[in-house]
Amino acid sequence: MAVPDAQIHEHATGVALKTVEAHSEPQDLVFYSGWFCPFVQRTWITLEEKKVPYQYKEVNPYRKEEHFLAINPKGLVPAIEYKSKALYESLVLCEFIEDAYPDHAPHILPSDPFERARARLWVDHITKAVIPTYFRLIQSQEADKQDEARNALYKALSELSKEAKGPWFLGEQFSLVDIAVAPWALRDYIASENRGYRREAVGNGWKEWAERLETRESVVNTTSEKEYYAEIYGRYLRDEAQSEAAKAIRDGKVIP
Amino acid sequence: MAVPDAQIHEHATGVALKTVEAHSEPQDLVFYSGWFCPFVQRTWITLEEKKVPYQYKEVNPYRKEEHFLAINPKGLVPAIEYKSKALYESLVLCEFIEDAYPDHAPHILPSDPFERARARLWVDHITKAVIPTYFRLIQSQEADKQDEARNALYKALSELSKEAKGPWFLGEQFSLVDIAVAPWALRDYIASENRGYRREAVGNGWKEWAERLETRESVVNTTSEKEYYAEIYGRYLRDEAQSEAAKAIRDGKVIP
Repeated sequence: MAVPDAQIHEHATGVALKTVEAHSEPQDLVFYSGWFCPFVQRTWITLEEKKVPYQYKEVNPYRKEEHFLAINPKGLVPAIEYKSKALYESLVLCEFIEDAYPDHAPHILPSDPFERARARLWVDHITKAVIPTYFRLIQSQEADKQDEARNALYKALSELSKEAKGPWFLGEQFSLVDIAVAPWALRDYIASENRGYRREAVGNGWKEWAERLETRESVVNTTSEKEYYAEIYGRYLRDEAQSEAAKAIRDGKVIP
Repeated sequence: MAVPDAQIHEHATGVALKTVEAHSEPQDLVFYSGWFCPFVQRTWITLEEKKVPYQYKEVNPYRKEEHFLAINPKGLVPAIEYKSKALYESLVLCEFIEDAYPDHAPHILPSDPFERARARLWVDHITKAVIPTYFRLIQSQEADKQDEARNALYKALSELSKEAKGPWFLGEQFSLVDIAVAPWALRDYIASENRGYRREAVGNGWKEWAERLETRESVVNTTSEKEYYAEIYGRYLRDEAQSEAAKAIRDGKVIP
């Protein structure tokens, strides 16, 4: 989903590096990652939550391995190689991990069909309302556009938080809804430090939920040192980023 | 997902009207519909394919029933009321119908986790690449923008068709991928008659697949008489439509 921007640090750092090092042995499931990418992090969190055996491989956007491109011609991360075939798209991968490892608790979707649909509905809200608005806010250069995007982000997060039962979205079960939004909770400090965003202004318990999300073990274990993100997000803040998400937002198109 | 445009005919016609009349009795599952809407039609096709007992209710965009708004405050269709609770979003509803009626064959997703993920991946492609491009093509007023959108639609449909095994996307199994794209196969004549689009130009067997889709029984049974769609799509072609999809495309935003 995400990708190339010049001069990205070549590998994970800090706690995330320890997680990478613990997953260097060959496994049936190979996880192709970019340590910095919020879409990648969703899939990584799911692997960590469910304690699925996986091999971590960092994809260098400038020197993609032949084998990776052969199984995944678009070259997008996150991607999973499973029995010599590739899949991509962060949310598709999260559901795949759930389906392919049914004996690995915890489960990221409820078993009740109605509650499962309700979870998918709010994941869809994160995709359509939260994420494009977040990128619009950090990429906007003019004050009036920033104001519009910040208010739209407050509204999207407020609607989502209003439906959250606590401590997690579905109550006691940590689910795909939490996983889908967690990487952006973790990165909202960029909007706080540069775009006048405040967690408190969202209401409906977002601040407390976001704090729980960013301190969840699986989230912490997939997070690198803060200084290395700054380099990447500086480009978003100047609207110079060349990731697929950044270009789509700039062109008024759907994030691919 | 879709909705309001002035002067929409008040109910389904032709074959679709017969289907509506056959589903007027109260049932556990109530299907809130707008007969003209392609997003609605996905859910309707799923109900018809799986022969789930449902009660059809047409939602008049100008006179929404109190009960409908009470359970579904955004007022969007398609929606499903199930045991007094509401769900919406066309694809979420399709998966809900599959999950809630596991004994009703045919199944719209494969049981193998990898193939299931692959189906979801291509549904995602339809959401992100096919549909916004279709709307951009019919709403664009300038020739250069129409050319750009038409080529983008050809590319999106071509990539999709290349992965289709035939006769349906997954082979013999009629699946959510077929359902997700069918309403737009059915409506591509609007682009043919007004925007220089040709099925033959897509390649990879799209023309033959589209013909199979538009003659599938569940698709035929949920389709009204052609003249009533013309009234609605005229507004898209003049870029005057006020549906959520039309407004999003006009503003360069994600279709909600």
